[in-house]
Amino acid sequence: MGSTLAMVGATGAVGRELIAVLEEREFPVDELRLLASPRSAGTEIPFRGEALRVEVLSEERLAGCDTVFFSAGGDTSLEWAPRAVAAGAVVIDNSSAFRYEDYVPLVVPEVNPEAALKHQGIIANPNCTTILLVVALGPLHAIAGLVQVTVATYQAASGAGAQAMEELRSQAAAILAGEEPQVSCFPQPIGFNLFPHIDRFLPEEDFATKEEMKVVWESRKIFGLPNLQAISTCVRVPTFRAHSEAVFCSFERELSVADARAALKAAPGVRVVDDPLAGRYPTPREAEGIDDVLVGRIRPDPTRDRGLSLFLSGDQLRKGAALNAVQIAELLQ
Amino acid sequence: MGSTLAMVGATGAVGRELIAVLEEREFPVDELRLLASPRSAGTEIPFRGEALRVEVLSEERLAGCDTVFFSAGGDTSLEWAPRAVAAGAVVIDNSSAFRYEDYVPLVVPEVNPEAALKHQGIIANPNCTTILLVVALGPLHAIAGLVQVTVATYQAASGAGAQAMEELRSQAAAILAGEEPQVSCFPQPIGFNLFPHIDRFLPEEDFATKEEMKVVWESRKIFGLPNLQAISTCVRVPTFRAHSEAVFCSFERELSVADARAALKAAPGVRVVDDPLAGRYPTPREAEGIDDVLVGRIRPDPTRDRGLSLFLSGDQLRKGAALNAVQIAELLQ
Repeated sequence: MGSTLAMVGATGAVGRELIAVLEEREFPVDELRLLASPRSAGTEIPFRGEALRVEVLSEERLAGCDTVFFSAGGDTSLEWAPRAVAAGAVVIDNSSAFRYEDYVPLVVPEVNPEAALKHQGIIANPNCTTILLVVALGPLHAIAGLVQVTVATYQAASGAGAQAMEELRSQAAAILAGEEPQVSCFPQPIGFNLFPHIDRFLPEEDFATKEEMKVVWESRKIFGLPNLQAISTCVRVPTFRAHSEAVFCSFERELSVADARAALKAAPGVRVVDDPLAGRYPTPREAEGIDDVLVGRIRPDPTRDRGLSLFLSGDQLRKGAALNAVQIAELLQ
Repeated sequence: MGSTLAMVGATGAVGRELIAVLEEREFPVDELRLLASPRSAGTEIPFRGEALRVEVLSEERLAGCDTVFFSAGGDTSLEWAPRAVAAGAVVIDNSSAFRYEDYVPLVVPEVNPEAALKHQGIIANPNCTTILLVVALGPLHAIAGLVQVTVATYQAASGAGAQAMEELRSQAAAILAGEEPQVSCFPQPIGFNLFPHIDRFLPEEDFATKEEMKVVWESRKIFGLPNLQAISTCVRVPTFRAHSEAVFCSFERELSVADARAALKAAPGVRVVDDPLAGRYPTPREAEGIDDVLVGRIRPDPTRDRGLSLFLSGDQLRKGAALNAVQIAELLQ
């Protein structure tokens, strides 16, 4: 069965990756409508050998759609997603606008696919850092029961959009040339630098960033563990499009490294890269452009009961955003 | 009182920083002998307006020295440090060769200065990551009693030496030009990449890296807490010369964020940079070239009893190596 799809935010980093993923996975599409702000309208983007012209987002262009992907930021989703639903579409929203609403499923297909079927028109795609984390922890939680998780992240420029990736490039070039880096997308220079500041600071959460709380809130919702003990420190680093995470966690039941590795090897969406003596462990460079989350450095965490530590890398634009959204759409077919 | 100093490994990244720190701090020096391998001999390095010529390391040149700084790697220290001691010098060793010997004090002057006075000829300068960590945790341990610490690091290229910094530069330039990065010092490309692999993997320590175990072993020794629960994941990132660390820790006694901040503000060697709403938190860019360890993002860690989280950045070559070594020498004066 083919379908009519629309994509709001088609010219952004995630939008372009969505188009690539739809092509690669041969998602059944009769018509694909690329929608964006008036500023981006008129841009041509290739899809299955055709040049599709980006149109201005409007109620008319949402009418008749089966599925609408939103990746144009929270404000656009808040304003337009309900209209798309009212026009009969299912919305798969990449923003955080609806993620914490009880009536909106938050879905990572490898972990909680059943949740997608309970939607009331909107399904939320989780935050990229959360997706990568729960893909790795899901198989371990399934056999041992997750109790606590501590995460420090290494997040790529792509998480802040296509312009941010360009800013990393131009700042690095400036610094190599002995010039001052020009800051525009980011709160700090990112070229040869890093900073623990992604999304805004929340005074009501002890000045954690919203990104850090997304990891906590969303992991709880996806796993159905409202009391999961979780903390994260989220750090932007000068890589282009793959995030990494140093993870320390503990479980209800004993979980040996061998059992953890076996569960991860058998899990969908995970590639175990864990042969340190051969120089094999996850890196963003190896994770760029691929679908799987790379998991390695699996070892005991002796500082806590039934503790385990691991390191992961995953493409922020693919599994962290576009691929997960398309997988959700596939669940609905 | 002036003295005769020698520096073994004078042409390396740490050696050059040592010379700069001796100048800046007006360390009393009658004679400074710069020693290195035959390959580097003949190089001229300025010190207090004079061009000092690097000489080949030999027993003759160690004779008559009061203090000898070693920063030429573990093998050189193992071979030559005992000879320097036999010749009457006190050795301050920047390698890990003697750090874990009971008879060798491991000293961070802000934390355990008294240990320096108990030396038997060799005093070890801790690993850079450990130094930065204990400078930040020392004042908190003093008032609340450290129980557990989890660290994920963001370590600069300088930790692998001067050539490694150049390799980061040349790889970044290659990638910006669309070329393949050439790898020589590092186990993986570092330009726009990162990897959890610093020093070698230790099969007997569940495949932790030696760097990761240094943080554990050395923190225990410096704090005099042989049972301290500690784990670290050490990651090389594409910054030039400042390390950062995401730290999660817990204490024996209650420690409010306000009390932690007050203790850190009063502590030597620490600069509290913690006003997130004003965009103020530690970054490697701000830490480069300065003496203090920047500490910020101080907040509760609700996942553990009496838990606290913080983020720090510190210059790896200064407080992480050269400055700490000179401060040790100052303790002995």
